[in-house]
Amino acid sequence: MDDALAFDVFDRQCPSRGTLEHVTGRWGSLTLGALYESGSRFNELRRRVDGVSEKMLSQTLHALERDGLVHREAQPTNPPRVDYELTPLGREVAERLLGLIRLVEGRMPEVLDARGRYDATRGSERGGRGGR
Amino acid sequence: MDDALAFDVFDRQCPSRGTLEHVTGRWGSLTLGALYESGSRFNELRRRVDGVSEKMLSQTLHALERDGLVHREAQPTNPPRVDYELTPLGREVAERLLGLIRLVEGRMPEVLDARGRYDATRGSERGGRGGR
Repeated sequence: MDDALAFDVFDRQCPSRGTLEHVTGRWGSLTLGALYESGSRFNELRRRVDGVSEKMLSQTLHALERDGLVHREAQPTNPPRVDYELTPLGREVAERLLGLIRLVEGRMPEVLDARGRYDATRGSERGGRGGR
Repeated sequence: MDDALAFDVFDRQCPSRGTLEHVTGRWGSLTLGALYESGSRFNELRRRVDGVSEKMLSQTLHALERDGLVHREAQPTNPPRVDYELTPLGREVAERLLGLIRLVEGRMPEVLDARGRYDATRGSERGGRGGR
């Protein structure tokens, strides 16, 4: 492998850093996860990705489409209908994201226990200020 | 499985959403990835995670420690020495993140091609404004 062509997310100048951020960013990860389940129209995605604004979803979809992870298909209907779906690369990325999501969801009892222990010790150090 | 206990990152009220954000956030993902390679001291992490400020790394480590993904060990030396390492859960999460990172890094040629095509069409629509 030619090292000069290697991509490295740890290097902030590397373009892979930007793509990783699109993929792992709050809305990117959930959008990819939602589209893995099925192709969707914009409003369906907004409903699925609870909390995302129209503007943020639009920006997210543009970034993912530009990176070749999402395909946008405008149907020649009247009124126009736009469908979003994952590209093959988008599916591979989404599969790994969903593996991460399932792991996190499944281990939340451990996470919540850890938060309780952390807050109990740090809380007393900081005069009881609760954590997020 | 008791549905009332199910965690769902798609629901913004669910605590799993916050943990997912800690894990997939820009600095969280890179910090977990760096610690997977080896336990580190604060300054070593700052060097590895190119671009992170002292404040953001500190906040990130606190969030990951609170979620039970990172263990902070203060050595009783003089001067004090603090080491950070992944917990077993942190390693499981980091493994999945690294799988995602390696996928993205390895497919960057495709991503860059897609960006080129996207910018070529959108660029002409928007009067040549380049994308990020």
